[in-house]
Amino acid sequence: MEKVISDDAARIAQTLERIIPADAAVLQAAQERQPQLTKPVGSLGRLEEVANRCAAICGTLTFDLSKPRIVVFAGDHGVCAEGVSPYPQIVTTQMVLNYLHGGAAINCLARSFGVELQIVDVGVIGPIPEVDGLVRRNVAKGSRNFCQEAAMSSAEMYAAMSVGVALAEEAIAAGCNLLGFGEMGIGNTTAASAITAALTGCSVAQSVGRGAGADDECLKRKISAVERALALHQPYLEDPFEILQRVGGLEIAAMCGFCLGAAAGHRPVITDGVIATSAAALAVRMNYDVKDYLFAGHSSVEPAHNFLMEIIGQRPLLSLEMRLGEGTGAALAIPIMQGAAAMFTGMATFESAGVTGAEGEVEHA
Amino acid sequence: MEKVISDDAARIAQTLERIIPADAAVLQAAQERQPQLTKPVGSLGRLEEVANRCAAICGTLTFDLSKPRIVVFAGDHGVCAEGVSPYPQIVTTQMVLNYLHGGAAINCLARSFGVELQIVDVGVIGPIPEVDGLVRRNVAKGSRNFCQEAAMSSAEMYAAMSVGVALAEEAIAAGCNLLGFGEMGIGNTTAASAITAALTGCSVAQSVGRGAGADDECLKRKISAVERALALHQPYLEDPFEILQRVGGLEIAAMCGFCLGAAAGHRPVITDGVIATSAAALAVRMNYDVKDYLFAGHSSVEPAHNFLMEIIGQRPLLSLEMRLGEGTGAALAIPIMQGAAAMFTGMATFESAGVTGAEGEVEHA
Repeated sequence: MEKVISDDAARIAQTLERIIPADAAVLQAAQERQPQLTKPVGSLGRLEEVANRCAAICGTLTFDLSKPRIVVFAGDHGVCAEGVSPYPQIVTTQMVLNYLHGGAAINCLARSFGVELQIVDVGVIGPIPEVDGLVRRNVAKGSRNFCQEAAMSSAEMYAAMSVGVALAEEAIAAGCNLLGFGEMGIGNTTAASAITAALTGCSVAQSVGRGAGADDECLKRKISAVERALALHQPYLEDPFEILQRVGGLEIAAMCGFCLGAAAGHRPVITDGVIATSAAALAVRMNYDVKDYLFAGHSSVEPAHNFLMEIIGQRPLLSLEMRLGEGTGAALAIPIMQGAAAMFTGMATFESAGVTGAEGEVEHA
Repeated sequence: MEKVISDDAARIAQTLERIIPADAAVLQAAQERQPQLTKPVGSLGRLEEVANRCAAICGTLTFDLSKPRIVVFAGDHGVCAEGVSPYPQIVTTQMVLNYLHGGAAINCLARSFGVELQIVDVGVIGPIPEVDGLVRRNVAKGSRNFCQEAAMSSAEMYAAMSVGVALAEEAIAAGCNLLGFGEMGIGNTTAASAITAALTGCSVAQSVGRGAGADDECLKRKISAVERALALHQPYLEDPFEILQRVGGLEIAAMCGFCLGAAAGHRPVITDGVIATSAAALAVRMNYDVKDYLFAGHSSVEPAHNFLMEIIGQRPLLSLEMRLGEGTGAALAIPIMQGAAAMFTGMATFESAGVTGAEGEVEHA
């Protein structure tokens, strides 16, 4: 086992070293191109920022977001023993099968938007019957109950992170130029709340929400579980790796690795709801430059989401009062980002179209 | 001329009579279906409302939004004589040519999203050279300066409204099942501000914004123009037809007719920025049931937009700090609405997928 542990940890260290800031010169060139396009200056609002940043990420003004892929990581959570979810743990496995049969929300969005979809078992208890399409990278049959011990061993954490890095690298090798990610794991909003409280210092009450639909009693159990976990692991919560290992989860570690892999590979990567964003926030704490590559797909109704947005330095593109996960909020942002790209790379300039600029002066390129 | 006037006015009256509320029984059936789908109850947030309402509009739970069309209506404005825009009036014609050559923002979005696009000359001064693709329905070479007289004659207004009704009916006859609309017309934010102040009673200062980029002096001229127009036409501003005729514009009248035609034909119709929404608000004041068919694509940064949202009873789906018009805000909402439809009509139920519901109980259809 020692060798496996070392390889995974080494892979993460190497990935972190490969991450550099997005190209500032291309960002400036993109910003200078915007006023030449046939629209009033600034009139595309946030879509101009999106396009400019994608140019900087891709290192070219003629970037392309036409081949998107979303990867959904699934894992189970030992903290379910604390009664933190209204759904039984078996639903993680059942929903993985639902994804593989094409019946979940994310399947419908992927079909509607022409997005490639990968479902990855990184930590499901299962068993998952033989079904086509599952990416089998199971590191462990669920995390441990972090109210009693660390959610994962260090080896498990690095192995799960490596799964995420590998899936990002595979997507990039397959030509995917816009990445998104999401998760499935009964109990994982409790882990995300613990991560948020540990990362941001917000109170437990501020970081815990109703997740998939906790009633008042269930919400109390979630708050209690997070409070006890933070107390138990208190000496270890300064470091993002320690936070991830102790109060995270296998699919959260994989999503964190996915962000690192996307940033190292210079691809824009869209985060989803509160659990996905907790993984992105850990990645940013591991390497601040990951920020440059991240886009926030949507604003979740989970209270922890706003705290995490501050850490990743993003404003959500959409605000539709969703709280589903599965990558649905990332998927919905894909056409918006593609639209921003299409306008930036496809619009005529005032000069090329013979359109007179503001104040009667013809603008020149 | 009398016969033409009467035909157009009669067409509008008949269209208004055909508008009925969306189907309440189908709305209820859609609301009852939502909790059966494999997601936590309510977790798709506003997309559930969108899907439910589309079902009610289309009169079926198996509705389809796969063939969208956006119609852009262009017209010139006599109020440009008051110096209300930083752009010269010729830009309306130049931009129409830009649309026909595929170089504008709305062209890029339409291509990116697979949306049919029609460009309609309803009131451009022109001349517009022979170019393929233009829908030529010119009612007049621009509106008149509403600081001095009514923007249109009653005959012109009804003719322009009839153009909009006809374009909606043509789209529906062509099988389009999701409609959007937008506009081009230098000076038309001034008209939209006058309409907003007349409809809502908000102050002129509240209703006037910088439009395509008015500087402080230009903004003062806009405010002054709207103040003088409202004073001149004060006796006539209780009725939506009078408001439209006196301080509207030809493309605004056409968009108003387009809303009426879409509602009469039972199709969801997406409004765009502040000018398009001023037309939608007039349509709602002409027949309150138009509300049931309208969706607000995005939230414009123009201050009048919020006042108009109250009249049309909608909350914008997107908020991206845009202020371009052209139907761009409507276009960006199309994939969002299609995603909502895809999930509603394509997701498995708890029963069909064998997924356990909340609190351990298997839910039944």
